Amino acid sequence: MQPCNGQLTTDDGQKVMTEQDKKFMRRAIELAQKGIDADQGGPFGAVVVKDGEIIGEGCNRVTSTNDPTAHAEIVAIREACKNLNDFQLDGCVIYTSCEPCPMCLGAIYWARPARMYFACNREDAARIGFDDHFIYDEIERPIEQRHIESINFLREEGLAVFENWAHKLVKTEY
Amino acid sequence: MQPCNGQLTTDDGQKVMTEQDKKFMRRAIELAQKGIDADQGGPFGAVVVKDGEIIGEGCNRVTSTNDPTAHAEIVAIREACKNLNDFQLDGCVIYTSCEPCPMCLGAIYWARPARMYFACNREDAARIGFDDHFIYDEIERPIEQRHIESINFLREEGLAVFENWAHKLVKTEY
Repeated sequence: MQPCNGQLTTDDGQKVMTEQDKKFMRRAIELAQKGIDADQGGPFGAVVVKDGEIIGEGCNRVTSTNDPTAHAEIVAIREACKNLNDFQLDGCVIYTSCEPCPMCLGAIYWARPARMYFACNREDAARIGFDDHFIYDEIERPIEQRHIESINFLREEGLAVFENWAHKLVKTEY
Repeated sequence: MQPCNGQLTTDDGQKVMTEQDKKFMRRAIELAQKGIDADQGGPFGAVVVKDGEIIGEGCNRVTSTNDPTAHAEIVAIREACKNLNDFQLDGCVIYTSCEPCPMCLGAIYWARPARMYFACNREDAARIGFDDHFIYDEIERPIEQRHIESINFLREEGLAVFENWAHKLVKTEY
């Protein structure tokens, strides 16, 4: 704590956080609590901020919406992109109540925000039954050794569409 | 090819595919082509099959819907789960026209289908401008060394919600 200028250090003491950072993270944590109170899904919340304003937020809704991809970060990213009318989060900051799982981390990289803050970490999540470790291990494993059997075939037929994309003159790249 | 029994081997010659597998993969490839023809997004398609029936399918819609998470696999998984009224894809098979990116691989692990087939691979995707390699590298990198700055703070406040989840008596786990 450095109360002289209203700033805080991070949990590892390495960076200086502002009161605004604290406010947005507390909103993400509040969304996590509201989510479990309303039986939406697991105890996770996230907000996306641009220019000091929340432009997307959400809690985990996996079990209430039967959507295994409805993690808090994905819900918040989708809402923020809709509001921005863009598929990129240029100059945005994501605050999430827990370190993202590999799916959400992938989504964050595709959305390309400027920065990401998280409160709990993956070990904390594993201790309450949300173990991402298995997925991290699987991603690093050669595809033919994965637990969900993954089989490659008809590559040549798939490549024909890639060729068509490569030669398409008018297209939106991302 | 083993025309005597209507079965095919995979591109690496290791496994035997059925005519039905071929039909579903061709549908995924067709969705990829239709997607680029209709300017929906990148050249990717996917289908989810249960008991020999397609229960979800889709193409990449990132740029047309301003949703960076709308990859073909995620679109197909969300539709299949909605149709099954479940957040798990028990006994299902996913056919995708290209090896999933880390986000989609994470989604597949959360959805837990029985098996996954893919046509093009990640090197093919990189050659037409969709380079997942950066994301794979970032996932393996220690969090403090990532290119999107990732900062941990307010962990203790986040943990309070995890405690509340751990002690919640009635909840749906996933």
